[in-house]
Amino acid sequence: MPEDSRKRAARRLAIARGHVESIIRMLDDPQVYCVDVLRQIKAVQGALSGAGEVVLRGHLEAHVSTAHERGDAQELIEELMEALKYT
Amino acid sequence: MPEDSRKRAARRLAIARGHVESIIRMLDDPQVYCVDVLRQIKAVQGALSGAGEVVLRGHLEAHVSTAHERGDAQELIEELMEALKYT
Amino acid sequence: MPEDSRKRAARRLAIARGHVESIIRMLDDPQVYCVDVLRQIKAVQGALSGAGEVVLRGHLEAHVSTAHERGDAQELIEELMEALKYT
Amino acid sequence: MPEDSRKRAARRLAIARGHVESIIRMLDDPQVYCVDVLRQIKAVQGALSGAGEVVLRGHLEAHVSTAHERGDAQELIEELMEALKYT
Repeated sequence: MPEDSRKRAARRLAIARGHVESIIRMLDDPQVYCVDVLRQIKAVQGALSGAGEVVLRGHLEAHVSTAHERGDAQELIEELMEALKYT
Repeated sequence: MPEDSRKRAARRLAIARGHVESIIRMLDDPQVYCVDVLRQIKAVQGALSGAGEVVLRGHLEAHVSTAHERGDAQELIEELMEALKYT
Repeated sequence: MPEDSRKRAARRLAIARGHVESIIRMLDDPQVYCVDVLRQIKAVQGALSGAGEVVLRGHLEAHVSTAHERGDAQELIEELMEALKYT
Repeated sequence: MPEDSRKRAARRLAIARGHVESIIRMLDDPQVYCVDVLRQIKAVQGALSGAGEVVLRGHLEAHVSTAHERGDAQELIEELMEALKYT
């Protein structure tokens, strides 16, 4: 993975981590509202999906344009279909 | 939300946070494999969904059995349908 | 399930079925664009989720307000948590 | 899209359509169980995702290996990231 993609993905994950911490703190409050917690959890999942997109895009940019010269187009496609299960 | 549910949800979120940290460390490695990162991100999303289920179950256990005496069954249903969007 | 919910869910499913038929016809065209097909498939999945919401809401309306007198609140909760996996 | 992919996707969609029809018939029965209907709807969504994978794989096989000579790798990547939103 290109350095730029790794850094951007790491930055997004760091934000998601902070968000998880704030949800943990929310749960200290006996009056916390169930739907609010669920909404925050959903927001973190969206942020994680965003980090996953950065990772996948970095992979594609590193490999699609050179698949021809490496002769591994079919292998790349299998990887992509595999990656799809995780996005 | 009942204390027991809040504690169990917080514990699951703390595990998810540790998992996010380990993915951030993975991304320091220039040789990290894209599909591995995506798989780990997906695992964290699964853990977050598990925390969400704990939250929702706590809410249901606190409210369904007493909806009749409170007379707010319809309001509870609206909340549940709302909560569903976040699970 | 109440008759009204069954009818509304069936109506939504009939629309989804018509939508699936139109995608099948799209695929007769050699020039069909991949992303368009995926977008239509996603739209059908959204319509199916909508039908699922109608079904779940009907179930909740039939059961939550009477859980107390039937004394089966816990059973209802287990059903809901099970239903959640399918929405 | 290659003919083979279109035919296989269409076949899967025809099966999904038949499955939707059987759910519509299930809903004629006043005794139908909510969770069963939701489970069947989820199964159809899985079948539609399978059809989407066939479509995407056909697109990738038609385009990745020739992206180099066409010089449109970046455009292909944008398409893939767009397609991802629908899978």
